[in-house]
Amino acid sequence: MWNREIPRGLRDLLPEEVKIKRNIEHKAARLFRSYGYEEVITPTFEFMEVVEAGAGGNIRKDLFLFMDREGGILSLRPEMTVSIARLAATHYREAALPCRFFYLANVFRHVQPHLAQYREFWQVGIELLGASGAEADAEVISIAVKTLQAIGLKDFRLSLNQIGIFNGLLEGSGMNPEERQTIRALIEKKDLVALASVLEGLDIDEGLKETIASLPVLHGGLEVLKRIPYVEKNAAASAAVGELLRIYEALQVYGVGQHIVVDMGVLRGLDYYTGMVFEGYSPALGYGLLGGGRYDNLVGKFGHQMPATGFALGLDRLALVLQAKEEEPRCCLLGGGDLARRVARADELRSEGYLVEMDVQGLSREELQERAGQKPGCQVVYLDIDTKGNDRHG
Amino acid sequence: MWNREIPRGLRDLLPEEVKIKRNIEHKAARLFRSYGYEEVITPTFEFMEVVEAGAGGNIRKDLFLFMDREGGILSLRPEMTVSIARLAATHYREAALPCRFFYLANVFRHVQPHLAQYREFWQVGIELLGASGAEADAEVISIAVKTLQAIGLKDFRLSLNQIGIFNGLLEGSGMNPEERQTIRALIEKKDLVALASVLEGLDIDEGLKETIASLPVLHGGLEVLKRIPYVEKNAAASAAVGELLRIYEALQVYGVGQHIVVDMGVLRGLDYYTGMVFEGYSPALGYGLLGGGRYDNLVGKFGHQMPATGFALGLDRLALVLQAKEEEPRCCLLGGGDLARRVARADELRSEGYLVEMDVQGLSREELQERAGQKPGCQVVYLDIDTKGNDRHG
Repeated sequence: MWNREIPRGLRDLLPEEVKIKRNIEHKAARLFRSYGYEEVITPTFEFMEVVEAGAGGNIRKDLFLFMDREGGILSLRPEMTVSIARLAATHYREAALPCRFFYLANVFRHVQPHLAQYREFWQVGIELLGASGAEADAEVISIAVKTLQAIGLKDFRLSLNQIGIFNGLLEGSGMNPEERQTIRALIEKKDLVALASVLEGLDIDEGLKETIASLPVLHGGLEVLKRIPYVEKNAAASAAVGELLRIYEALQVYGVGQHIVVDMGVLRGLDYYTGMVFEGYSPALGYGLLGGGRYDNLVGKFGHQMPATGFALGLDRLALVLQAKEEEPRCCLLGGGDLARRVARADELRSEGYLVEMDVQGLSREELQERAGQKPGCQVVYLDIDTKGNDRHG
Repeated sequence: MWNREIPRGLRDLLPEEVKIKRNIEHKAARLFRSYGYEEVITPTFEFMEVVEAGAGGNIRKDLFLFMDREGGILSLRPEMTVSIARLAATHYREAALPCRFFYLANVFRHVQPHLAQYREFWQVGIELLGASGAEADAEVISIAVKTLQAIGLKDFRLSLNQIGIFNGLLEGSGMNPEERQTIRALIEKKDLVALASVLEGLDIDEGLKETIASLPVLHGGLEVLKRIPYVEKNAAASAAVGELLRIYEALQVYGVGQHIVVDMGVLRGLDYYTGMVFEGYSPALGYGLLGGGRYDNLVGKFGHQMPATGFALGLDRLALVLQAKEEEPRCCLLGGGDLARRVARADELRSEGYLVEMDVQGLSREELQERAGQKPGCQVVYLDIDTKGNDRHG
């Protein structure tokens, strides 16, 4: 038995898959750069304390952990926002704000592998650090829309919420943190039955119960914001609604309004969000493509307070629906002649933009033809040994 | 105390460093593709057994190891060749050979950190799988030369050897494996004094001793191969010399001969090499930049025998000497006006190729000017609120 297994939930990416991935990355990076975002790269693993300080203790079950020989506990990074917050708090304490960063990175989570859900997966994303307000959020959301457009997706929606509406409603309710966590999870799962049953058992205002029970189904246009009656009694929630309105309006100015749905059921799993949150999905695909939001307290956890907002896009799911549509450069298999003539001709063809695979095994014209048959679009150039400079194109 | 430390030997790459890295990767990838190489991506970690089966048990001390929750021992990959050999033995059993692959990848070794030697570092490289012979080796070596040229290096040398010369000489000598390992390490370190002292204590042919003692200083042109007197008595070593000669001649045809030095002291640390080996270095820098060689038995260790040859280039050291010389796109800071006019003007400027950072904080013209002062080459476009379409360029 040969051992050539790879660990569960991982995979090799072969050339056709890599082309699709690089194609998406290339288009996203070009777009991000055009908005003034610059790429940063952080280490593949961090101290577990850093990850948990940022993403919250709930994340531990999903981490790949190992011991540092110097005694610390290390974690493969489960996402990039915490690492970039740490980077900003380390290297950009004196910088003029805002800073705009983007990344192309692999992240790691110990999840149950299923369709397009691997334990090592790839993300592109942006972080806009040091700017608060609706315009900063609208920039990030509109770049998310333009990224999906740039990579060729047409049919998609972004569901937008402001976590302050939910938090505001619950804060004054008298619920304990566990109850709030339960409610949050049920809203995210859109589990109306369980939600109603949990709410029934709680000793809180009846109007508030009704409002909370309706959150999972409150989605649509701006009119949704008028259908949360209890909100007007709650200052924090009202302020959050106002903020969401301003973002929504700015998104119309950005010309991306047709892709935006207001959805009170979007709460995002990570603890660090403090303001608007959003998720992008494709109705045809039936699953999420991207997610993001505002996280005004995260950088401060690493010792330098600044507001921030951003999003991340998962490449593995997107790659399922996209083809490498880029025009492939022409390819040829070059053989025959002697080495000197082959090398010279190969260099010529490369300078004309061909991808040239040169025979290194002394194959015959027929063998080369056969090999070209397995490479769609690849032509054979065979140099005769006795003629001078007359290639035979197969 | 805020914890924003990163584990020892790792680092953040900030935008200027990332640009240099991406610039090198981009040029290398374009070159590799023009020779018909296609990119593959393998998982960041492998089972430890796979790494050790490929790279040899000596590598264990350098590995970052952790436990799989399913019971296996996992290792962050310490290099890429073993993983690509495993990939080829898994996915290319039925493929027409040769296969040409390249990679851009981070690898991990638990070494003592020092100048440009990190515990996570970046490599680009190629593997030519399924082809034996001098022409295949010459293709790989000449691409190594052209890669260094493409990224702007002028002053560099490639030291070339054939591991079969050393192995052939020692095989018939009666030395035990430990003695051979000691000798090999001393030759690589060019420690002539210790080497002479170890050889003195060995009970082997005197002519062979003399030949071995001279290996570390045998470097130069082809004449070096005539200065290993004992070789002619050893069939395996003689065959290896003949192979090296053929590669050397093919490299002249490729037009890269002026960069090649024959060096009997180059033996490479990894166990899997079986034929020619080479290292690239810059005399001005005083350290190695790339390394590679032929490894005809490695893919076979994963259950599918095929000859193979390749090289890897370290990006971190190269980045030390290179600048991001690419022409930077023009950049501007856009403010003033109202959101609608700003968004419209930003889109216009982006379509003209500008990188546009749009103000999201309502900064004044003066504040924007001040910010532009911290971004070399960045101009300010400030829209007046009362005029129509007349930008003020600062």
